[in-house]
Amino acid sequence: MPYDLYYWPSIQGRGEFVRLALEDAGAPYRDVCRLRGVSAMDRFLGKQAFACPFLVAGKLVIPQTANILYYLGARLGLAPKGENERLRLHGLQLTIADWLTEVHDTHHPIAASLYYEEQKSAARQRAAIFLDERLPKYMAYFERAADERFSYVHLSLFQMIEGLRYAFPHAMHRAERKYKKLLRLVDRVAARPRLAAYLASERRIPLNQQGIFRRYAELDQA
Amino acid sequence: MPYDLYYWPSIQGRGEFVRLALEDAGAPYRDVCRLRGVSAMDRFLGKQAFACPFLVAGKLVIPQTANILYYLGARLGLAPKGENERLRLHGLQLTIADWLTEVHDTHHPIAASLYYEEQKSAARQRAAIFLDERLPKYMAYFERAADERFSYVHLSLFQMIEGLRYAFPHAMHRAERKYKKLLRLVDRVAARPRLAAYLASERRIPLNQQGIFRRYAELDQA
Repeated sequence: MPYDLYYWPSIQGRGEFVRLALEDAGAPYRDVCRLRGVSAMDRFLGKQAFACPFLVAGKLVIPQTANILYYLGARLGLAPKGENERLRLHGLQLTIADWLTEVHDTHHPIAASLYYEEQKSAARQRAAIFLDERLPKYMAYFERAADERFSYVHLSLFQMIEGLRYAFPHAMHRAERKYKKLLRLVDRVAARPRLAAYLASERRIPLNQQGIFRRYAELDQA
Repeated sequence: MPYDLYYWPSIQGRGEFVRLALEDAGAPYRDVCRLRGVSAMDRFLGKQAFACPFLVAGKLVIPQTANILYYLGARLGLAPKGENERLRLHGLQLTIADWLTEVHDTHHPIAASLYYEEQKSAARQRAAIFLDERLPKYMAYFERAADERFSYVHLSLFQMIEGLRYAFPHAMHRAERKYKKLLRLVDRVAARPRLAAYLASERRIPLNQQGIFRRYAELDQA
């Protein structure tokens, strides 16, 4: 029985963290909204899920990206089965979720419901402090995880770095020297056979200006 | 062996969600930084935990509030033992975590490292949209969970409502009519014997202007 993933069909966004795990494991899944449109989510939203992504596995509806990965990890061979190690990896994944929210808020510090142009001045302030204070703190923290035994957390770190390179090419270029292991992780993950096939396929939606990672020149000073 | 909770000793903050579970269950625990100061966290921060709160249970170090509650829930009798139901409750808890971050960002939309006064105008905008769009969405979502079988999620909903009443008394007063079950939940939780004893004790740190829930008259129009 394939897994059903529900997420916006035109962006990588939070759903991509789940797609990477399913693809790397070669798990059978349907990206439901890409097949049937976003209205397929309606019967779940506000009920079993506050927002997307959510995963449907038989009768089980699992909301929240990190929760989905906690569930899938051990089942797909992307995490050990012992509870202690699963909790540890989940703690890392939840910290990635926090990091991702901070990235989102660099371009939408006031409200997701307003346009970027309506919150540009606040975005400039928030992005500058994010790049100065928060990015190095997260990078340093995950630098130590880069070398660990492979797990779904590494797929998510790959996605974070790829996204950050898209959104903040100048800042990330400056980071290359300091966080070598973390940045080298990207090549290692991208070379995994099933993942490489996925990244080269049309199933991989390109990063774009509607997603969580967005490139605005004024937020990333050279 | 008592649990060791590490969190800031002078605010409720995220740590309070863990304290409520430990107190309601009558579990033996030490609030380590209140006994030994915040430097007790140093050997864990940036290593096993990116930030506090984290819980130490024997050799296990568990970071992230929702992760801690996932771990404690079934052990303390505050969640069923079946995996499906644990994942469902965890999904709710992670949504509470998102809600809490949005509450925090109403007064600190630009950066946690700046004073409120330095981001007051952005805070005013963010708080207005939060109260108009996001608060009703979260309240409506959790209104349906209020009646469910008691779990640690209800303790966290109690904390959210108490905090929101402190921060936004006018907005919450207007919400009383619409989200009756959720708001009634507060009284039911507060009447649980062990929790009532905790709330009346000096262990319960009062809500204050250094925490996540803060009252600024200009963010909560009458």
